[in-house]
Amino acid sequence: MNKDQLFEQIKRKKSFLCIGLDPALEKLPKHLLKYNNPVLTFNKEIIDATKDLCVAYKPNTAFYECMGLKGWETLIETWKHIPTDIFSIADAKRGDIGNTSAMYAEAFFNKDQSGMSFDAITVAPYMGKDSVEPFLKFEDKWVILLALTSNTGSIDFQQQLAAEGKLYENVLRIASTWANSEQMMFVVGATKGAEFRNVRKYAPDNFLLVPGVGAQGGSLDEVCENGLNQQCGLLINSSRGIIYAGDGEDFAEKAREEALKLQTQMEAWLRRANLI
Amino acid sequence: MNKDQLFEQIKRKKSFLCIGLDPALEKLPKHLLKYNNPVLTFNKEIIDATKDLCVAYKPNTAFYECMGLKGWETLIETWKHIPTDIFSIADAKRGDIGNTSAMYAEAFFNKDQSGMSFDAITVAPYMGKDSVEPFLKFEDKWVILLALTSNTGSIDFQQQLAAEGKLYENVLRIASTWANSEQMMFVVGATKGAEFRNVRKYAPDNFLLVPGVGAQGGSLDEVCENGLNQQCGLLINSSRGIIYAGDGEDFAEKAREEALKLQTQMEAWLRRANLI
Repeated sequence: MNKDQLFEQIKRKKSFLCIGLDPALEKLPKHLLKYNNPVLTFNKEIIDATKDLCVAYKPNTAFYECMGLKGWETLIETWKHIPTDIFSIADAKRGDIGNTSAMYAEAFFNKDQSGMSFDAITVAPYMGKDSVEPFLKFEDKWVILLALTSNTGSIDFQQQLAAEGKLYENVLRIASTWANSEQMMFVVGATKGAEFRNVRKYAPDNFLLVPGVGAQGGSLDEVCENGLNQQCGLLINSSRGIIYAGDGEDFAEKAREEALKLQTQMEAWLRRANLI
Repeated sequence: MNKDQLFEQIKRKKSFLCIGLDPALEKLPKHLLKYNNPVLTFNKEIIDATKDLCVAYKPNTAFYECMGLKGWETLIETWKHIPTDIFSIADAKRGDIGNTSAMYAEAFFNKDQSGMSFDAITVAPYMGKDSVEPFLKFEDKWVILLALTSNTGSIDFQQQLAAEGKLYENVLRIASTWANSEQMMFVVGATKGAEFRNVRKYAPDNFLLVPGVGAQGGSLDEVCENGLNQQCGLLINSSRGIIYAGDGEDFAEKAREEALKLQTQMEAWLRRANLI
């Protein structure tokens, strides 16, 4: 999916919601445990109940890998269940030397090889340009580079001063020379709401993937006020706040209610910004 | 495996060689293609032919993930084939917010959950302390944190000046407050041979995992001269130089010959340093 197509979806659905599919077996509604693959059943019901309210799904690979072989199979089957007109993000935080990043690109972008072909993958910037380039060779596929993450550990390096600005500012500035806003997004945590205006100085046209609304305490309004651009430019993610909204047989309905609340807020912001 | 046990293995085998198990299907000897799982057959023969010459094996997860479900199964089966007295490293370059890194720790350290229980995992430092801590909660399991990597992209951020020293120096300094040398190693590329003396200022007692000898052009002698410490403190990795030494039916024998060359050089360095 390219940038214009993503913006079209945002306008059509009046939403820039991304739903994180991070299912932990012990948190699933108990009635699902009777199924052969409770996690997959859970994911499918969540997707079916929310797909008209969001523009992206983001499975975090850790939650699948911890279940071993069955987990990897569940990740593939979950990707297959995401409708093709919804932006799919492998939240994998990968990144390695060039020949190895090329293998990760095959793993997440080439379904003939791996069974999965996500629209985007999250990548850690620490290893620099040649660790990112192999992902950019796939047409209409995206790198979502970690810039300023939502966790407390973002203070350790990202927010430390470098010789010129902070490290995350250098990541934004330098990585913007590797690819334009048609193929590069950045992760900026919602818990860093006040920094969005600064982020936009370095990345005015890029989409930003924004985790941290909900369980982590980030503010949707603060992110929108400082982060919206002329093509929306935001994918705001909620995982736990939506997928664990209920733990009974009506869990998917409850998830939909939470997704609807966020979509309604987002619609208001899109109107305020004259984007719809 | 703890640090003393690792040092015992090094003295016993007169080697600090780590062999990278990074098999690409198109590079395998052609006669293996008749097997149901050529990559697994390849890995098993490489391990069987070299296990008396090395102290560690390091499968890079990218090379397995790119083969989809069968690849993940091959990774698990490869881990099972590594003898328990050999240090096993999941070269996975993971790292995420705390609750997610905890899932990655389950994936690579808890075989009851995932089918695999490596001794160590490589982790990217960009997300800071709380992204690393969950891995440290496992007794006798190790984090191998990326510090100064072997690729050209290491110039982009790692070698850039921060307010105090270079970024990779800050990674060494700050991460050393998170865990001691019993649980924390660092990745330092062999292509950065001249920097090892500097690395040792920040990490005198830690083991360093050193990729980049061989195909990437790093010098074993330069690394040893500047990097050996009182418990050896080096695991020098070679992947392509060993596993692709031959492409005929005798590929495992050829791999053994290359491993033996490196082991012989390492033995000489261990003697010179009075460690054996």
